[in-house]
Amino acid sequence: MKSLDRVIAAFRRFPGVGPKQAERFAMYLLRSSEPETEEFMQAVKALKTSVSQCGVCCDYSDTPVCPVCSDPNRDASVICVVQQPQDAAAIEKSGAFKGLYHVLHGAISPMEGLGAGSIRLKELLERLESSKGGVRELILAMDPDTEGEATAMYISGLAKELVPRITRIAYGVPLGGDLDYMDEVTLGHALKGRTKI
Amino acid sequence: MKSLDRVIAAFRRFPGVGPKQAERFAMYLLRSSEPETEEFMQAVKALKTSVSQCGVCCDYSDTPVCPVCSDPNRDASVICVVQQPQDAAAIEKSGAFKGLYHVLHGAISPMEGLGAGSIRLKELLERLESSKGGVRELILAMDPDTEGEATAMYISGLAKELVPRITRIAYGVPLGGDLDYMDEVTLGHALKGRTKI
Repeated sequence: MKSLDRVIAAFRRFPGVGPKQAERFAMYLLRSSEPETEEFMQAVKALKTSVSQCGVCCDYSDTPVCPVCSDPNRDASVICVVQQPQDAAAIEKSGAFKGLYHVLHGAISPMEGLGAGSIRLKELLERLESSKGGVRELILAMDPDTEGEATAMYISGLAKELVPRITRIAYGVPLGGDLDYMDEVTLGHALKGRTKI
Repeated sequence: MKSLDRVIAAFRRFPGVGPKQAERFAMYLLRSSEPETEEFMQAVKALKTSVSQCGVCCDYSDTPVCPVCSDPNRDASVICVVQQPQDAAAIEKSGAFKGLYHVLHGAISPMEGLGAGSIRLKELLERLESSKGGVRELILAMDPDTEGEATAMYISGLAKELVPRITRIAYGVPLGGDLDYMDEVTLGHALKGRTKI
């Protein structure tokens, strides 16, 4: 069926969706009631029309400035730089951070031809400049891979004139993780980043 | 964000989708370009408007009678009864069956209060009656679980007056499967269903 194949093809473009799951999704839509499908379509439409990027931190937001950036109780002197909106959401969920975020929407990847212009780096530097020393710490919370590493190095090179303190989150053995199941790179990082007790 | 949460909630209703995957899907839609989202929305819309059930076998179809049922080269004297459209598609892919299908769209499940009226059983019986003996074999290809078992028993009870031969597909050790990893019920079935060589 052409219309079924078309929906399956559309779902195949979703991240991590294989042929079997795409088929299951299409079947679910066929099975589901008219109001259910309508709600789904409306939700997607609303998402695409009402969500844009926060004018300060570039995170996705319903409003011109996102709730975190417009919260007067947040510490505006600390900015945590992340690659993706999900990363900011994950840190937010941990409750361990009371500063502001900056979302790059990607990482520098020379292998894939993605330079500094492909991420929201210019916005970060402008933000730091216009704060006129109001930002005293920049926490780099990049993914622990080559692109994340390259991005962190590149940003720290550009930002060190603008912020007195640039830090990186700790990379090591995750809590609840089994030490003997850890890969050697993680263990190497955990050892290198050891702290005094 | 309200509109993000709404889409995530909609995706959570998809089969087998957890909170993390629903979030990834929503983020994918946010990232994706206008034409991409538009194609997705149109595909879903087309699916819901153009697909209905085949008037003969009750499988999903773009046309009033599905391609299988309207193919003169198929053997109309053998009907394979399956629970879901995907089951018919899977058997079709095997290439081992040249007859016609009947899709029940479910199974009888007294535990969940799903009686014979909740599946396309009436349509099957009418089809057998109106064929006036044209159907000589009914193959029951139910899922190997309690509901499938109950459904097969129920159908064979009602259809035995209408069809000379009612069979069930073989349940046993799958090809490529490891015998010592098989559960005892499957092994029991495989032994009970042994054939002479």
